[in-house]
Amino acid sequence: MTNPRTFEFAAGSTGAWSILSIKAVIGDTLPAAERLDVSGNARGNVAWILRGVTSNVRYVTQAERGLLVAKQVDPGRESATRAALIPIKKNAAWWDLPQDERRKILEDRSRHIVTGLKYLPQIARRLHHCRDLSSNEPFDFLTWFDYAPQDAAAFEELVSELRTTEEWNFVEREVDIRLSAVTA
Amino acid sequence: MTNPRTFEFAAGSTGAWSILSIKAVIGDTLPAAERLDVSGNARGNVAWILRGVTSNVRYVTQAERGLLVAKQVDPGRESATRAALIPIKKNAAWWDLPQDERRKILEDRSRHIVTGLKYLPQIARRLHHCRDLSSNEPFDFLTWFDYAPQDAAAFEELVSELRTTEEWNFVEREVDIRLSAVTA
Repeated sequence: MTNPRTFEFAAGSTGAWSILSIKAVIGDTLPAAERLDVSGNARGNVAWILRGVTSNVRYVTQAERGLLVAKQVDPGRESATRAALIPIKKNAAWWDLPQDERRKILEDRSRHIVTGLKYLPQIARRLHHCRDLSSNEPFDFLTWFDYAPQDAAAFEELVSELRTTEEWNFVEREVDIRLSAVTA
Repeated sequence: MTNPRTFEFAAGSTGAWSILSIKAVIGDTLPAAERLDVSGNARGNVAWILRGVTSNVRYVTQAERGLLVAKQVDPGRESATRAALIPIKKNAAWWDLPQDERRKILEDRSRHIVTGLKYLPQIARRLHHCRDLSSNEPFDFLTWFDYAPQDAAAFEELVSELRTTEEWNFVEREVDIRLSAVTA
């Protein structure tokens, strides 16, 4: 029985998203493919599959959640025909830090939550955790973003801002996969 | 490929631990069995299997970690011939709380970390997470404790203290399994 919070991203020959590019930002890339399936029912040739589970928040405070809830939207809006899947693995030094030290880096000094908030509701986001799956996974997180074509520049700003932060010193692998909705 | 932090607890006819009792503390119990296998290689009749993954700390601060590291021991000491496996599921209200609110309940008001610390190094402990496994699990956590027979009273105190806390208002299922090492 699959955890109902599990999402599967399968790159291959089928799927509702056309893969525009796969770029290694830090470390090794992922194999090329034509399409990405996010329905959990990929058929045909599959180049790779990544899985993750949505979960409780790890860093967000009550005050921050109030701000997020007021602005956030779920991925899947009809207008959101551009998307990105960004798998990330953090290093052992990150995972060995206590909770308060990780929070200080992630938000007090890197402004991760506030930066994401700035681009809401244009850029919708869903975070999936992989590190505590029963299988040994190549990434710790998969973040899915979607947005309308006219918000593509805002999305570039968002990822650029995050990549210059202290938090990103702990990223040992990052791949950036850009997608466009396949129109019937 | 299994996550190297995965542990498997299989109740049945084989295993290095004799099951002394299985008691429901909150909610439904688990089926009876003779033995518990923690090697990951259970054979024979298996009544149930629970799995969990050790992970990064979720609440412990730098200061608390200093205190823990100074006193803590890993389970598996030769003298630790008594053990307990305590599977717990927390309710939806708990998981929906932001990080700072969960921390306030768990430690500021329930003293979960400090209480465990008080019984170190006599009572060794290892926490396994189940909630974010790829499969749908009946519990969120499995905590394994082991101790020498002369520390059994201290262990009873530890679990009693925790069960009277505000944190335990969020526990919707808890089973308490007591074990004794099988001597050759």
